[in-house]
Amino acid sequence: MGDRHRLDEVLAQLRAGQDAALKRLLDFLRIPSISTDPAHRGDVRAGAEWLRDQLAGLGFAAQVHDTPGHPMVLARSAPGDARPLLFYGHYDVQPVDPLSLWSSPPFEPSVEDTPGGRVIRCRGASDDKGQLMTFVEAFRAWKAVHGELPSDLILLFEGEEESGSPSLRPFLTANAGALRASLAMICDTGMYADGRPAITTQLRGLVGEEVVIRGADRDLHSGSFGGLAANPVMVLAQALAALKDGAGRVTLPGFYDGVEDLPAELARDWDALGFDAGEFLGRVGLSLPAGEAGRSPLEMLWNRPTAEINGITGGYAGEGFKTVLPAEARAKVSFRLTGRQDPARIRAAFRDHVRAFVPVDCSVEFHEHGGSPASVMDTSDPAFAAAKRALGEEWGREAAFIGAGGSIPIAGDFREILGMDSMLIGFGRDDDRIHSPNEKYDLESFVKGARSWARILAALR
Amino acid sequence: MGDRHRLDEVLAQLRAGQDAALKRLLDFLRIPSISTDPAHRGDVRAGAEWLRDQLAGLGFAAQVHDTPGHPMVLARSAPGDARPLLFYGHYDVQPVDPLSLWSSPPFEPSVEDTPGGRVIRCRGASDDKGQLMTFVEAFRAWKAVHGELPSDLILLFEGEEESGSPSLRPFLTANAGALRASLAMICDTGMYADGRPAITTQLRGLVGEEVVIRGADRDLHSGSFGGLAANPVMVLAQALAALKDGAGRVTLPGFYDGVEDLPAELARDWDALGFDAGEFLGRVGLSLPAGEAGRSPLEMLWNRPTAEINGITGGYAGEGFKTVLPAEARAKVSFRLTGRQDPARIRAAFRDHVRAFVPVDCSVEFHEHGGSPASVMDTSDPAFAAAKRALGEEWGREAAFIGAGGSIPIAGDFREILGMDSMLIGFGRDDDRIHSPNEKYDLESFVKGARSWARILAALR
Repeated sequence: MGDRHRLDEVLAQLRAGQDAALKRLLDFLRIPSISTDPAHRGDVRAGAEWLRDQLAGLGFAAQVHDTPGHPMVLARSAPGDARPLLFYGHYDVQPVDPLSLWSSPPFEPSVEDTPGGRVIRCRGASDDKGQLMTFVEAFRAWKAVHGELPSDLILLFEGEEESGSPSLRPFLTANAGALRASLAMICDTGMYADGRPAITTQLRGLVGEEVVIRGADRDLHSGSFGGLAANPVMVLAQALAALKDGAGRVTLPGFYDGVEDLPAELARDWDALGFDAGEFLGRVGLSLPAGEAGRSPLEMLWNRPTAEINGITGGYAGEGFKTVLPAEARAKVSFRLTGRQDPARIRAAFRDHVRAFVPVDCSVEFHEHGGSPASVMDTSDPAFAAAKRALGEEWGREAAFIGAGGSIPIAGDFREILGMDSMLIGFGRDDDRIHSPNEKYDLESFVKGARSWARILAALR
Repeated sequence: MGDRHRLDEVLAQLRAGQDAALKRLLDFLRIPSISTDPAHRGDVRAGAEWLRDQLAGLGFAAQVHDTPGHPMVLARSAPGDARPLLFYGHYDVQPVDPLSLWSSPPFEPSVEDTPGGRVIRCRGASDDKGQLMTFVEAFRAWKAVHGELPSDLILLFEGEEESGSPSLRPFLTANAGALRASLAMICDTGMYADGRPAITTQLRGLVGEEVVIRGADRDLHSGSFGGLAANPVMVLAQALAALKDGAGRVTLPGFYDGVEDLPAELARDWDALGFDAGEFLGRVGLSLPAGEAGRSPLEMLWNRPTAEINGITGGYAGEGFKTVLPAEARAKVSFRLTGRQDPARIRAAFRDHVRAFVPVDCSVEFHEHGGSPASVMDTSDPAFAAAKRALGEEWGREAAFIGAGGSIPIAGDFREILGMDSMLIGFGRDDDRIHSPNEKYDLESFVKGARSWARILAALR
């Protein structure tokens, strides 16, 4: 197989082009493509155009497609007789606040020596520009050796992943013919904690909700009204506190419908990973698994649903003290979903739950912020075994099938709209600080990531 | 009595000087003496100096006394052989945010015709500058008629009442000799709801606490960590929600120690007031008494202790959605106290309660924001009956002994440090919007308030 696809030459080409590849990634990282902030709209487009130019330069038929939000980059190699593969990544990035916690400007990438090895420091380095470029550099080396790109590749790079992907499903639906492949390769995941290569075979879904409870038509004096008038902050605190019971289980009726225990084989695999919850939490200043009683830490992260308060506000938050009885309280709440939990039913159950706490003379309002079911891949497709073998050869360690606690709704969308499975392979690390200040991507992840894709391409072509 | 003190002439003098008195009050109101905001430090001092100048002009020996915080204004009339009386008010005011809800600039006073009569609109009009000036104008008229001030008056005007009075107790202790009187007259209270003159004979106390719960050393990605890592906002919500049981009772151990049911006589008096909770709440857009089961609305407001959340904040509160697991959560919480509840014990019980919810790998920090017991006056002092009679003569309605839900810690401090009782008489109305945007004071309260003090002075001199 390696012979037929001149894999050794492709890998040698990647080695020879390593410095140039890094320089290209740093150029890409300098574009502050924050999709959730309207002030960066032009930067997001600049990111799309930069990618389009790179891909066109390699011989892809590449286009920037406008959407009602940020653009999609779509590219294709020449048709052939291979199994068509779709490659997905995103070129937008998270906001950078609080800026004061960054040790260097978030969009001035640097390559730093750290005790853990060389790292590329920049917002988006790991999530997802560095990962996305491992695809691109593998294609580039292949082209250099073979004189042409691998056939039957479809590339889809999104610019709204960090802001809820509002244009994605309509785009998939409208372009289903052009996008349909036999398998999607998604590069937005990580390696296992200790640096073992991994294929993520299950992802949690997400329901996001914002709730606003209003009481009196103004902030009241807590002396004049306290004890008699409803306090929306207390109402909200009571509704949110009651989302979980003493054992850490979510109390919404029907919440666990569709949640399944791990298959025995996967449970054994996960146990064998030797996950150290104390070490994992210790890196962020914590020590104690705080989830459901009777569940292993990896189950809590990958195979159990959650309810979290992402933000709360109400009443006086300034310096000193103000004895107001607040007129209004707000919270942003999200649920991570597993198995076959239904986002719409969970959203409805949450709203019913909150409404039951709101006195008749107060009002409640809900705002929807995204919803997607969990994704559980069918690993019996032989491509999974082939990719697992290819990863093992590159990294010198057996690759693992793992789960992920985060949501990558695209995997569910590919299944639902395009009828295809996804293979989630990425080279991010747990300490990459994605969504936090001082995000980084290991140089090793970038270099060996591109080599891994070259090997997987050879195995699947 | 009226004859001996030429009361009719004093009242006529007040009538003749009414426009000039109003002009003086408007001048006073223009000073933005917000004590809790360091940016207004100079304005608070300007308020003190304005008052000192007014009082010195009337013949008081008046001084501005520096404190570690804002100054005290202290003034005395000539000694004589009357029962010495102390008059207390405060010249500082509440902050004005949210500014956008004011219909006119908060420190540009105006006199407006409203369906309820003419009102003086300004921050501090009712709380407490307008009330304080009813004292001063009564003294001014007395002086004009008698050629000298009433003897044996001590005036104490504070500049830190709205920011917890940090300098008050040390000042009372250090100046106990100069301040000791037989009775204190406090003008920081209101009339009964329907405009009936009232003497407030019991006040709730206050315990203010700020709590900060910290978890991870940064905001976390709720996908990567949710379900395993502690969420400080959820911990805080659970601790605060558990402060009350399903019947609206506060759950802290020992919380109700020292709380007493109303004496039968006072219960009858309060019933006779015909308090309409629906009407009272309706004025602020509410309708339903939300307090303890089995208690009358007036009990909830005046004779039952409370636990209220005054403010809460944690995690992402901006536009859109950010799936963070917050590193920190904060709340400001206050308790209103009645009877002989002990502020120190309640503060300790609250802290113990919260600590029991905090996981071992999170931290909690408390900040004290004031504490004072409730005040219950001894109404057997004949001065109470005399003042009640004088109020009835001015207003043409029998005055009532009532309670107040707010805290005026000074009454407790006077008892504890100076060994004297307080008589709480004020002319504020329930719809004065104190502590809220568009605060006002009825012109009638200002005019008849000054006349009421002239009558009370005559009755007690």
